[in-house]
Order: sequence, then structure tokens, then C-alpha cells
Amino acid sequence: MRPSPLLALLAFVLVAAQAANAAPTTIPDAALKTAAELRERALADTLAWEITEGLTTEVGPRLAGSDADARARDWMIAKFKALGFDKVWTEPVTYPRWVRRSEHAEIVSPFPQALALTALGYSAATPEGGLRADVVGFASLEALEAAARDAIEGRIVYIGTTRMDEKAGRGYGQGSRVRTRGPSLASGKGAAAFLLRSVGPEDTRLPHTGVTHFDDGVAPIPAAALSNPDADQLERLLQRGQPVSLRLALDCGIEGEYTGANVIGEIRGRSKPNEYFLTGGHLDSWDLGTGAVDDAAGVAITTAAARLIAQLPKRPARSIRVVAFANEEAGLYGGKAYAESHRREIARAILGAESDAGSDRIVKVTATVKPEARDAIDRIAAALAPLGIAYDRAAPGAGGSDLSAVHAVGMAGLSLHQDTTRYFAWHHTANDTLDKVDLEPLRQNVAAYAVAMYLAAEAKGDFGSKPGAFAQKEP
Amino acid sequence: MRPSPLLALLAFVLVAAQAANAAPTTIPDAALKTAAELRERALADTLAWEITEGLTTEVGPRLAGSDADARARDWMIAKFKALGFDKVWTEPVTYPRWVRRSEHAEIVSPFPQALALTALGYSAATPEGGLRADVVGFASLEALEAAARDAIEGRIVYIGTTRMDEKAGRGYGQGSRVRTRGPSLASGKGAAAFLLRSVGPEDTRLPHTGVTHFDDGVAPIPAAALSNPDADQLERLLQRGQPVSLRLALDCGIEGEYTGANVIGEIRGRSKPNEYFLTGGHLDSWDLGTGAVDDAAGVAITTAAARLIAQLPKRPARSIRVVAFANEEAGLYGGKAYAESHRREIARAILGAESDAGSDRIVKVTATVKPEARDAIDRIAAALAPLGIAYDRAAPGAGGSDLSAVHAVGMAGLSLHQDTTRYFAWHHTANDTLDKVDLEPLRQNVAAYAVAMYLAAEAKGDFGSKPGAFAQKEP
Repeated sequence: MRPSPLLALLAFVLVAAQAANAAPTTIPDAALKTAAELRERALADTLAWEITEGLTTEVGPRLAGSDADARARDWMIAKFKALGFDKVWTEPVTYPRWVRRSEHAEIVSPFPQALALTALGYSAATPEGGLRADVVGFASLEALEAAARDAIEGRIVYIGTTRMDEKAGRGYGQGSRVRTRGPSLASGKGAAAFLLRSVGPEDTRLPHTGVTHFDDGVAPIPAAALSNPDADQLERLLQRGQPVSLRLALDCGIEGEYTGANVIGEIRGRSKPNEYFLTGGHLDSWDLGTGAVDDAAGVAITTAAARLIAQLPKRPARSIRVVAFANEEAGLYGGKAYAESHRREIARAILGAESDAGSDRIVKVTATVKPEARDAIDRIAAALAPLGIAYDRAAPGAGGSDLSAVHAVGMAGLSLHQDTTRYFAWHHTANDTLDKVDLEPLRQNVAAYAVAMYLAAEAKGDFGSKPGAFAQKEP
Repeated sequence: MRPSPLLALLAFVLVAAQAANAAPTTIPDAALKTAAELRERALADTLAWEITEGLTTEVGPRLAGSDADARARDWMIAKFKALGFDKVWTEPVTYPRWVRRSEHAEIVSPFPQALALTALGYSAATPEGGLRADVVGFASLEALEAAARDAIEGRIVYIGTTRMDEKAGRGYGQGSRVRTRGPSLASGKGAAAFLLRSVGPEDTRLPHTGVTHFDDGVAPIPAAALSNPDADQLERLLQRGQPVSLRLALDCGIEGEYTGANVIGEIRGRSKPNEYFLTGGHLDSWDLGTGAVDDAAGVAITTAAARLIAQLPKRPARSIRVVAFANEEAGLYGGKAYAESHRREIARAILGAESDAGSDRIVKVTATVKPEARDAIDRIAAALAPLGIAYDRAAPGAGGSDLSAVHAVGMAGLSLHQDTTRYFAWHHTANDTLDKVDLEPLRQNVAAYAVAMYLAAEAKGDFGSKPGAFAQKEP
């Protein structure tokens, strides 16, 4: 049977549509020229510094669920509005409200002295008046896993993995696995409390907090990190072979739920305003420092980059959406909420890149996009090269902390990897303060985000965002 | 009238004695060979490390007048004995017992957040429940001196001198003058409390304590140091021009008197055992750290150097006396007590050098001795040169912290100046812990003390120690 003219037309349209869909995504030459101008303006801009200074000074520590959570939101809403963002709104995010009131530890015997530690997020409190128990030490999570219950029951479990040293290949992953898995494992074997060596490379007596997690059915126990010098001290005592008895007094714990919000500011695109580049950082911080490198800087870098794009004589085709995420620290709540509420329309988020590794220089770019968009990423990478940014074409890029949750529901991801040599010494500690932020690398970050965001927003074609697109590529 | 033969003989004896007294002090060639051997043995010795490790681990913080004061003395007595010192004894030292229980500060308005601070030694407590007042800031002690009482009365005085930077010539002296003079001056003008920027160069959120002093008739007030990042934060708030209100809660103060002791170990000299080289460090430390660089290392270096001399096949002519001084931190009590009780026999202390600037390398030697002993000092300096130690022949050398008090009553002084680039970031803070001590520079210190002590103890002639000898040379 001959096909009817109508069917032939339909087939042509479908094929053409497929071809259009499969055509390579491109970056117009004119956009590269504008990107180069943005780059130069960013390198002389001070807005990222001003935002970092303002948020860390006028709000200070911003623990999710604390009074400062609301103050930070108000501050950020006002900032987006003052900067002339076209649309500013919030989207609610609900999470447990974990509170830290006080913490104290001391060696009772054999050699009485105080130890510097800090409770992990979601740590339980010690009983009224504190808890006293002997310490049982393990060299790894695996050694704890292998230990018999009666070696652990009623004791304080300490895991003293080798100090973090990124250069020696003992990175953040190993330590943070001890932090997230150790307390639950110890509690399951009847431990009275759990201590670990801080997940950080430095010899400063400021311990690193961070989130932990208790499995369903496992009772939360007091869980805390010793600073590296205090971990050294405890290990020296354990090595002397006498019983080591500690007193812990942690007043902290979960007090119900709290509803905060992602704070969102958008610069409207010229011709496809419903599509957007998704960027941002997280607005919350741990309570010990003022959250300068983690992550006021990320909010500041991406906001400043978006503002530079807003000031262009001609906007890019698509919008730039900056999200100041809620409660990243205690479980990526802001990112997960965004992913959940935007998953059906995730194709609109054409590409995403979050800044959440401090304020030092971006050294590398990677991306996870559809194959037809690889040439466009190549062009973006070439535009970033003058900033000293290498390009690893083969490596994935999930877009960064909160955005990893959004990437998991189908958003294409761009990762702008920073030099984290200094970052891991400061984040999650009292030392995360404004003095750790240097203007020149901060500007380089703004330049990189402005260039990448602008070029992607101006691209002809998309990067592959659609529901479920990259789910299988998650590590 | 002709002089009688008896008078002539007497005159001859007196002149001969004067000539002998005026003869140059010399270092025998054989002693230089032994010193070179000591130097090499010191560079392979581990005792100083072991003492530093032991004292900081098994006693830990050693605040004068605390329970650890007595534990430190017991530890040191046992150590001198275990090392085979010929004579081990204590000499009582009495001082005020200042106690630190807790400390907390927060900005109440305009931007609520905690501040990291630590009370100064002899700070008064705040009233029960804490103290709330507005802050009035000054850039210098001179500006506070010039201020009217009604600008200060009832307020919290803050002095924010420029951050310490030894290389830029803003050294420890300027800051410690603010620390020792500021609180009394502020109290005299009716201030409710006194805060200063920590006297330290680093950007770590660990404040530096240190002693302060209230003049007679001036009421002690709460006095504390903010860490450098917290001082920065307070200054940013003050610069915004709104009133800044703080709440301080310091629970500390003087609780009567305490009698501790200088702990003394002596290696007996071969032929003039009643004369001795006076060395040592201070046994007390501030309570925030474990007093590793300030001053376990000094006690350890000088004890290890003396032990190397004790192990020689042939002892030097004179004794080596190592003093672990009591309560240097809160007012040189151990040094002053030693000076007072030994002043009449100070000529027996032929030369003195104390180690109290950490464990980094000695870079320079200076001395204050009688002119006839300068050649001997030149020889000692030449024997130190292979250790990379320069010699400033014109500069004075009072012997170091506690020994400055002994020098003031007439002991000749030798100063072995260390590289303090790192020291001032750590001392008087929680960061003064064992991990800051490196073995190689520690050994270089032991080598320098062993060489200098041995050569001086073996010298022919003295260095000018006698009651009142150098009093006029004190700065």
C-alpha cells in the first residue's frame, strides 16, 4: 500500500524533529566575544567579596533550623532584590531541627586534661551530668565492623584513621565515611558514644563537625570529632596500654522539624526565559564558624556572576537561576527538595553548576551532558582556559553538592572544580571565617561562572536535561 | 713614712688578686674538642623529644596553682632522678592562684553571634549571669589614655591594634603592652570590661591568653583576648557605625595563694662543684594547650643537654644546674624567687641561659658578660657556628625569661635566640601542643645548649657574675 501524502508528511516532520534533536548543540561565535568581556569585568568586580563579607558579618553562623536560618533567608531575599534580580522567591524545605548547646570532653584517667571536640550533626546528647566510660580504639571502620559486641558495649568507641592528606591520597571520602557510618555501627554494637579523628588535614585544635546518620532502628548516641592534636593525644594515651577513661558532656540533639526555604533569584532570559542555567551555593553553614568558605563564597560567586550577566546590554537567550540552598550540611535537604519539586520540568534546567568548595581558584572543568552537546562543552572549556582552568573531557560533572540531587533526576551537569588544598582545613570548623577568603581567586571563580553560565544560556540546542537522563551515570 | 714589709706584702697580694681578676677568661682547647663531640651526640639524641612528649601527654596543661601544677612537679622530680641527676631538689615559690572555669562571649546586637575569646590571667569574673554592655573601640593604648572617662564608663573597652606581624615590625612587645596595661587603664576610667585583639600573627580562631596586671587601687575587671578573626569581626561591626552590644560571661579569678616550687636538677662539676651554669625552662604552662612549645620544650632541651654532659667520660669543672621554673606565665614568679633566694651567692651562677621560645632552631647568640670574658664568649659562639647560629657580639643577652630576673641581681647572661616565626602563632593558645614540635630543630637546640653549657662550665675564669653586676644594663 502506498503511503498517503498525510502520513508521508507526518513521517517527514517526525524525522526532521529527530534530526533537529540529534543535531550538535553549538555556541555562537558572538557569544564567545561577550563571554570574554564578562571574564574581564568579573576579574575587576567586588560584588562577590561584598556578599561574602555581608553574609558572614551580618548573619554570621547559619545553622539550619537556628534563628540564623531565618535571618539568612531574609538577608538573601533582600540582597537579590537590591541587586535587581528579575524574580526573587522562596520554595519551602523541611528538615529536622538539630541543636547544639554545649560540648565538653576530658580525660579522667590516667592523665586528667580537657580534650577539644565537637558534636557531629544529629549526635544525641549525653545523659544529664555527662557520661563516663573507657575508650576502645579502632584503626578503621572495618576493624570496628569486625569487633565483637562485648568489646564495645558500654564503651566509647574511637576510630583513629590516618589523618586526612589529600596529596597522599587519604582524602575526604575515607574520613567522611567514618563520620557518617561509624556512629550508627558503634551504636548497633552497644557503644555508649562514638569519637573520631577530625576529617581534616591540619594541626589546629579546632575540630571538624559534619553530619552523621543513624540507621533505622538504631538508637542515636553521642558522636563527636576530636581535633587532630586531640586525636593524637588520645592515641598516645591508648598506646601506653592503660585504660583510658573519658568524661563526655554533649548537650545537643534533634528538636522536632523546621521548615526553611531555598531562596531563589532569577535573571530573565531574552528569548527562552522558561529555560535556565541552574547555579548557586548553600545558604546554611555549620554553627562553629561564619561559613565563609562553606558556603557564603559559593552563594556570592554565583550571585555576582549572574549580576554581571544581568548588566549586559543584551541578555542571553535563557534565564540564569541562582539558588541559595537550604540545609545542605545536614543532608542536602535544599537540593533534594529542589529536585523533587522540579523533576517533571527538569528539561528546563538546561545545565547546572553549584559552587561549594570555598573561594580558591577553579582548576578544572568537567561535565556530564548528552553526546551531542560535547562540542559545546569543548567551547565553554576553551573560553575558561584563559582563567587557568584545565578541561578533563572524559570525567563526569554532576554539578556540585546540592545539584548532585538535581542531576540525579535528569539535569545535565557542569562541575567547576576548585583547588581545595586550603578548604579542607577550614570547612566545618570555627576557622571558616572571612579572613580565609582572598579577593583574587574569588574573582577568578566569578569569571568562570559568568563565562560558563552565559555561554550555556546562549547555546543553540540543549545539553540533554530531561527526566531520568543521567540517573545511571551517578557514581 | 716607709711602708712596713707586712703592708707591702698585703699591697702585693691585693694587686695580684686584682690582676688575676682582670685576666681574660679563656676556654681551653681540649674543651672545644669535647664540645664538638657533644654537638654531634646531641644531633642524634631523642631525650628532649621524649621529655616534651611525656610532660605534655602525662601531665598536659599545667596552669600555675592548678592540680596539674603539683603533678608537673612530681613528674619533673621523677624525671631528673630517673635520668641520674646528681642532686634533685625543690625550692618553694608562692603566687596567687588564678582559676579559669568557663568563658563565653556573644554579640547581642546588631548581629547576634558567638565570639571566640579567652580570659587573660588575673582577669576578674563577670557578674553572675554575665555582663551586657556596648563596646567602645580604640586603635591603641594611647587613644584609650587620651579618652574621657564618660566615653568609657560602663562600657566594654576594645583595643584593636594592628595584628602582630614580626616581619613588618609589629612585634610581640606592642601587643603585650596593650595586654598588660590596657585592663588597668580601662578599669581606672570605669570600664565594665576590657577586650583586645590577640597578640599573635595567625588567622586561627584560637585566642591568645597571657597575663595582665591591675595597678594598686584599681579594681580588677573582666579582661579577655579575641582571636584575630573575631577581632576582625568586631571591628567590621564597629565600622558599620551602629552600637555594638556584647554579652560576656567569664567565670575566673584569683582564689587565694598557692605555694608551688622550682624543681632543680644538678649535674655535679668535677673541680668547682659549687659554681654552676644556670639553665632550664619553665614547668608551668597556660591551661589552653598542653604547653609543648611554651615551655615543655625548653625544660626538655636544657635537661637533655645537661644529661649529655653528665654522660661524658670527664665532667666539666663546674656544675650544670637545670631549673624547671614555677609560674613563669603569670609573672616570672619562679625566676624572681630564684633571684631573691640566691642573690647573695649569685657569683656562683657563672653564666645563665634559659630556653623559652619554643622548639624551632636557634639562630643567634648574644651575651652580657664582663669585658674580660668577651673572648670566651667569642669562642663559645665559634663553637655554635657549625649549628647555623650567628653571633651578635654587640647585643646584650639577659639569659631568657625567668633568668632575666636572675640576671638583674648580677648573673652574667647568655641568650640563645630561636626562630620565633611559628612560636608566636601557637604560644598562649590551645594550639600549643606536641604536634608543633619537630625533632630536628629540637636536636639543634639541645646541641647548642650542650656546647654552650659545657664550654662555660669548663672555662678558666668567670663571666662577671656578682651581686649587682649587670643591674644597670637592664633595658
